[in-house]
Amino acid sequence: MVRAEIIAIGSELLLGGVADTDSLYLADELLKLGIEVRHKTVVGDDPKDIEGALRHAFERAALVVTTGGLGPTQDDMTRKVVARVTGRRLVLHDETLAAITQRLKARQRPITAEQTTQALIPSRAHVIPNPVGTAPGFFLSYRTERKEDHALMCLPGPSSEIKRMVPEGIVALLEPLAGTGARGTLIRRRLRSFGLLEAEIDARLKDLYGAERHAVIGLQAGDWGVDVSITVQGRKPESAEAIVRRVERAIRDHLGDHLYAAGSQTMEGVVAMKLKAKELSVSVAESCTGGLIAQRLTSIPGSSAYFNRGLVLYSDRAKVDLLNVPDSLLRAKGAVSNEVALAMADGVRERSGTDLGVAVTGIAGPSGGTKEKPVGLVYVAMADKRTAFSRSHLFSGDRERIRRRASQAALDLLRRYLSGKAIE
Amino acid sequence: MVRAEIIAIGSELLLGGVADTDSLYLADELLKLGIEVRHKTVVGDDPKDIEGALRHAFERAALVVTTGGLGPTQDDMTRKVVARVTGRRLVLHDETLAAITQRLKARQRPITAEQTTQALIPSRAHVIPNPVGTAPGFFLSYRTERKEDHALMCLPGPSSEIKRMVPEGIVALLEPLAGTGARGTLIRRRLRSFGLLEAEIDARLKDLYGAERHAVIGLQAGDWGVDVSITVQGRKPESAEAIVRRVERAIRDHLGDHLYAAGSQTMEGVVAMKLKAKELSVSVAESCTGGLIAQRLTSIPGSSAYFNRGLVLYSDRAKVDLLNVPDSLLRAKGAVSNEVALAMADGVRERSGTDLGVAVTGIAGPSGGTKEKPVGLVYVAMADKRTAFSRSHLFSGDRERIRRRASQAALDLLRRYLSGKAIE
Repeated sequence: MVRAEIIAIGSELLLGGVADTDSLYLADELLKLGIEVRHKTVVGDDPKDIEGALRHAFERAALVVTTGGLGPTQDDMTRKVVARVTGRRLVLHDETLAAITQRLKARQRPITAEQTTQALIPSRAHVIPNPVGTAPGFFLSYRTERKEDHALMCLPGPSSEIKRMVPEGIVALLEPLAGTGARGTLIRRRLRSFGLLEAEIDARLKDLYGAERHAVIGLQAGDWGVDVSITVQGRKPESAEAIVRRVERAIRDHLGDHLYAAGSQTMEGVVAMKLKAKELSVSVAESCTGGLIAQRLTSIPGSSAYFNRGLVLYSDRAKVDLLNVPDSLLRAKGAVSNEVALAMADGVRERSGTDLGVAVTGIAGPSGGTKEKPVGLVYVAMADKRTAFSRSHLFSGDRERIRRRASQAALDLLRRYLSGKAIE
Repeated sequence: MVRAEIIAIGSELLLGGVADTDSLYLADELLKLGIEVRHKTVVGDDPKDIEGALRHAFERAALVVTTGGLGPTQDDMTRKVVARVTGRRLVLHDETLAAITQRLKARQRPITAEQTTQALIPSRAHVIPNPVGTAPGFFLSYRTERKEDHALMCLPGPSSEIKRMVPEGIVALLEPLAGTGARGTLIRRRLRSFGLLEAEIDARLKDLYGAERHAVIGLQAGDWGVDVSITVQGRKPESAEAIVRRVERAIRDHLGDHLYAAGSQTMEGVVAMKLKAKELSVSVAESCTGGLIAQRLTSIPGSSAYFNRGLVLYSDRAKVDLLNVPDSLLRAKGAVSNEVALAMADGVRERSGTDLGVAVTGIAGPSGGTKEKPVGLVYVAMADKRTAFSRSHLFSGDRERIRRRASQAALDLLRRYLSGKAIE
């Protein structure tokens, strides 16, 4: 496998709240080409730090990919530092300059000196056009002082630009590189579970850990459940695939229908697929999740095929008015109760005229909890034309985490129903 | 400033979709102590890669903080690698073992050999208790082969655990270290804007870039708008504060009410604050944003003070039934129109009995666009008891980005209204 390192450049990625997610996408795309990202480094817009990160990266990676720092503003340093480290001059790339000029004209924006700096490219570098932004990327081969050959690719920071440039230019550039270094393979597969603790999964899978010499099983707990990854390295592609399949089958045997998805699939994606396949429509009534379930169900393109409406109801009055939840039930059991969850699911289904209704009621906190009904207590329910089901959960964590888990629990109930398996 | 490096350990952070956000939180907390995170490295669960990352980090940072890899499963490698790199033995820490045993008993979980490995701590390390998880952290001083003194802190991966351990144990441990190395200061302030392109902001702020010798202005475009950061480095705290204030004032003069928040504040946080201060209630009607506006407005603790209900309406029938949008209007203008947005805002306000109503209708794509009404066309509207306002936008990007920007535009309209300034 060719070893790669990603360097994400930008002070905002170190401090102040911008998570770098592009590198995850890039790593996945590179892996498809047989290039393994072994390290990722994040540095601020400081030229010395960028230079240090580049030099370190060349010590351990055959391919170095940078993101960010190619824009027109004064804190965009990548171009200059790359020129210094690789000993190249920056030359004005005519076609890029023409593209920038045209782009700005089309948007009736002035063409400034700063904007034209984006057409400066290290000499002998290959320009990677940027169909959706101003700054192009570039790619060059570089021989270090230790006489080792390395490849360097510099990309702009915005993810929408990276996501267009990868299929349209980058893959073709990297394919030959990937071919030269292939000395094995690495396959990773992710299975996603909901409803079991990490330690419970660990206990169930214990016997599998050493069973296949070339497979490594990893667990990763998060707000959406626990992901189980299978990694097989250093084998021929066919045998690695066979090992992954064997391990996956064993994991499926041990975790059963707690597994809801594989790879980059999401719970909402799986539910959407099943709803479309069965031509069923759904409506949602939420309290503590505040619209998160509706938002997740409608995040899928084409969601109008199955999604009818979502109601986020914070007041008891709204639950009575819009869902026909009996006033007496709210008084007797409280808004956060099994009975009200069932009535909400049934009410939203009936009032919307959909096949299915889903409801959540709970206490997301931080305040509002009592001894009987603590923060984290959540009831999820669903109804079809004949019957209704519900489940109670007690989630730990902060408000955001409780909301996420509650939405996941509701969608999981729907998924289990749609899988045609008995609930409870 | 003491230079620090964060090493995030976990293959899932390199591949397969888990963004590392803890390091952003840690970097902000360290900065408050006068410790500057200059690099962040992400490595997988490979012992050699972790070792290499640690050795590199000790070359450039006085403090190295690792996150992850302290759990009980076989891919948790941090403990072993740290012992090797620092030349320490791993010793069983009795108190930690007792705490782990007690924790598992309380949850009626079996105590396995794997679980007890979490009580292995490098010799002469200081244990950092973990009040919300099994694995504690630890802190040690380490003299490298080059006779340089370094500090190493190892923390578990889950963010909920890190967020409890920082105030309860870590700050006290790091404060003395921060004191020794202080040779200057670094202040960063972030101002958040919505409604202008990055290039437009760049043009407006151009004169400010060189105006203060010690201040660096950075721009960062994202789905929520463009953030403007001011960084002042290497000055005494008082004068650095004064410089930041001067630059901030100048930026505010140039960008006016396009600035909606500062620091880690969000648009929904600002809107919530204003709604609470004015004791106004709001209801929301959404189509293309699918519940995102409701979800954002209810993400704030105590949101029931101002949030009444949110309706996510995908069908025309639901708009007629639940919002009193006239059928004739839908037929004449189409669901995605200025007129329908206004009618939705007015309808949801009236039907909910709230002071204000907010509405969004648009085309999030990828399909459903026409020549007259392309993908990305969004109308946002709001209504009070007397009048209603709307705005149209044409957003670019994918479905998720269009939805985010549409929700931001709707909340921004609400923010401007609540600021008491004329709209349009």
